Amino acid sequence: MSDFKKEALDYHALPKPGKVALALTTASQTQHDLALAYSPGVAEPVRAIAANPADAYKYTAKGNLVAVISNGTAILGLGNLGSLASKPVMEGKSLLFKRFAGVDSVDIEVDTVDADDFVKTVKNIAATFGGINLEDIKAPECFEIEKQLIEACDIPVFHDDQHGTAIVTAAGMLNALEVQGKNIADAKIVCLGAGAAAIACMRLLVSVGADRNNIRMIDTRGVIYQGRENINKYKAEFASETDDRTLIDACKDADAFVGLSGPNLMSPELLQSMAPNPVIFACSNPDPEIAPSLAHSVRDDIIMATGRSDFPNQVNNVLGFPFIFRGALDVHAKVINEEMKIAAVHAIKDLAKLPVPQVVLDACNVDALEFGRDYIIPKPMDSRLLGLVSGAVAQAAVDTGVAQQPYPAHYPLQSTDDC
Amino acid sequence: MSDFKKEALDYHALPKPGKVALALTTASQTQHDLALAYSPGVAEPVRAIAANPADAYKYTAKGNLVAVISNGTAILGLGNLGSLASKPVMEGKSLLFKRFAGVDSVDIEVDTVDADDFVKTVKNIAATFGGINLEDIKAPECFEIEKQLIEACDIPVFHDDQHGTAIVTAAGMLNALEVQGKNIADAKIVCLGAGAAAIACMRLLVSVGADRNNIRMIDTRGVIYQGRENINKYKAEFASETDDRTLIDACKDADAFVGLSGPNLMSPELLQSMAPNPVIFACSNPDPEIAPSLAHSVRDDIIMATGRSDFPNQVNNVLGFPFIFRGALDVHAKVINEEMKIAAVHAIKDLAKLPVPQVVLDACNVDALEFGRDYIIPKPMDSRLLGLVSGAVAQAAVDTGVAQQPYPAHYPLQSTDDC
Repeated sequence: MSDFKKEALDYHALPKPGKVALALTTASQTQHDLALAYSPGVAEPVRAIAANPADAYKYTAKGNLVAVISNGTAILGLGNLGSLASKPVMEGKSLLFKRFAGVDSVDIEVDTVDADDFVKTVKNIAATFGGINLEDIKAPECFEIEKQLIEACDIPVFHDDQHGTAIVTAAGMLNALEVQGKNIADAKIVCLGAGAAAIACMRLLVSVGADRNNIRMIDTRGVIYQGRENINKYKAEFASETDDRTLIDACKDADAFVGLSGPNLMSPELLQSMAPNPVIFACSNPDPEIAPSLAHSVRDDIIMATGRSDFPNQVNNVLGFPFIFRGALDVHAKVINEEMKIAAVHAIKDLAKLPVPQVVLDACNVDALEFGRDYIIPKPMDSRLLGLVSGAVAQAAVDTGVAQQPYPAHYPLQSTDDC
Repeated sequence: MSDFKKEALDYHALPKPGKVALALTTASQTQHDLALAYSPGVAEPVRAIAANPADAYKYTAKGNLVAVISNGTAILGLGNLGSLASKPVMEGKSLLFKRFAGVDSVDIEVDTVDADDFVKTVKNIAATFGGINLEDIKAPECFEIEKQLIEACDIPVFHDDQHGTAIVTAAGMLNALEVQGKNIADAKIVCLGAGAAAIACMRLLVSVGADRNNIRMIDTRGVIYQGRENINKYKAEFASETDDRTLIDACKDADAFVGLSGPNLMSPELLQSMAPNPVIFACSNPDPEIAPSLAHSVRDDIIMATGRSDFPNQVNNVLGFPFIFRGALDVHAKVINEEMKIAAVHAIKDLAKLPVPQVVLDACNVDALEFGRDYIIPKPMDSRLLGLVSGAVAQAAVDTGVAQQPYPAHYPLQSTDDC
């Protein structure tokens, strides 16, 4: 076992198993404290909530509580390993929610692969929470599950593998295209992969200006084109009117490549065939579709992003989900709608263009960060994400009428102490 | 609104809504921390658990995590107010679990009154947790729900309104009968109330030596007797061969009265009709079946217990559930069986007979505590409960073969720091 693997196991086993625990936010030492926290005092908030369900946001932790829910059918890049095996990932997500945005969360592993059964289970427990983050659920079931839960619940339901990935990808792509002097409306975009993340990314790129006709989505059978048989309705959204049939056809003269597939599926030859100044998002993790060192050795006019923290331009969902939920929770948004997602895209995109203060450079452990080829996406350690992304999402919720509270007076947030 | 009610609402609203939050137990500040906590490091515990599900106890918080689950159909004494309104109570239970025994927990409100639907939902999420505490679910559904979940789950499932109440009641009753010079096998016991707690209390009293034929259980229609029509199978367990038909009949010459019913249902006349040196457990909360001041004014040979903290001998579930789960979790018990419950009864009972150290007197804010008429049940603030009750329960689990880990080397616990 490698040192890193051993360190990762030790990290999860020590000082005690797992990464999360319960914290108490009120006094609980004296008999009087306990008489307030439990019987007889607790009867008062019970009566208040029974009379007015919205009081649950006033007297319980619901309003700051996101459930991170999975059935383990698509864990990281590891596939269907069962719901219990997903627990370390879900606890990890809880850790990120808390660390970056002060959001409390609980992980729930749902032991079923049946979409209807999953929906019924989550619907039954949904009122416990202020929001639901779906995670690591395989396509195409994830689409139907999310759709049904959004309809059934009056709290935000957000499948992060789709929308979190899409939001950060779109932010980076808009910046990369700008640096390369390209217009998204004209860009030919190749999407290698046709799973949940790929479909969500392409949907959101269309929302922010891409032309659906310029997109080539590629699954294991090649380009998804108009008239191809046996494609599910989600892939069919991206069936292009094109003669392109293979990845080779699609890459020729393409302006951008978005890889959400597997390791080393992009070759130097394919890269060479792309248009001048192309954008390469090779997001397969941990091994990208093409290694940055190889790609840069093939041509020097590219902008490259990956899912890895050890190369420039990391596409990392943590830039999105903690702050998106933070903003949504703080205005009691009923949903996370398209406008809120787009607001997050622009907030993340715009942050990369701002001068970076020394305190942020120190946190990121770098000497300098300047908008350009090697810095099109903010760093996760940039503490300004909290205020900017949460604020933009909350404002969009208010503007689109899905907020049940006004834009918070204490916004923009400066640190998780404000949460 | 009374000052106490206002204080109770403020306690739940400030410093932020609710009583619980997420705590992180591992480092999460640096990029390296996060690479261990989430991708790519988290893949290692995922693979380990996929290969060996028991590793979830090693690498996740599962083993110290109890779900507190309700559908809100019997909230405190307030009735069916819906699942959401039960949330302050469930968070309160989580607070008590943590405060007294270092058990982490999450509250889950299940929005269904259908028993099968409830069972299916909880079964689907059960693997997330190390144990399940059912709470505030109305009878008779609670019996079937608990039975089915115990069969379906390989973790302890424990309906505290039944067994927690029964364990503490049995401990106190054994001590009270001893002080009164009575033998439980011969004692005539009146049980006013025939709900979940009442049935569980009488079942456990039989387990610790009471004679089923000496018990008179009374519901809204009077004594439950052999041959009475329209009684459910749970009440039928306590249908006596008797000519007693009313509470008046039952109380005559009774040695003990257990009230799990409603306020002021026990009269001075009934009390007068009981045998010499009777035991009165008037557990209706907040208003007992008979006020202690009234009872003591009627006769001076009684021992009296209530559910209230402002009178001697409080029957309080918090003496049981935190420590019962602590012991069960620490040996990975698959169930909480009858032997473990009886072990808890004896541990609680015996603690009341021990000399009380000054440090415990200070914590309880009293000058002296001595086994006898006014001290038959330990105080919740007695920190020795943790070691004694958890230790007894863990040992019983090991002895009866339901433990999956040996008796912990670091037992008996001295404080929650050991948990």
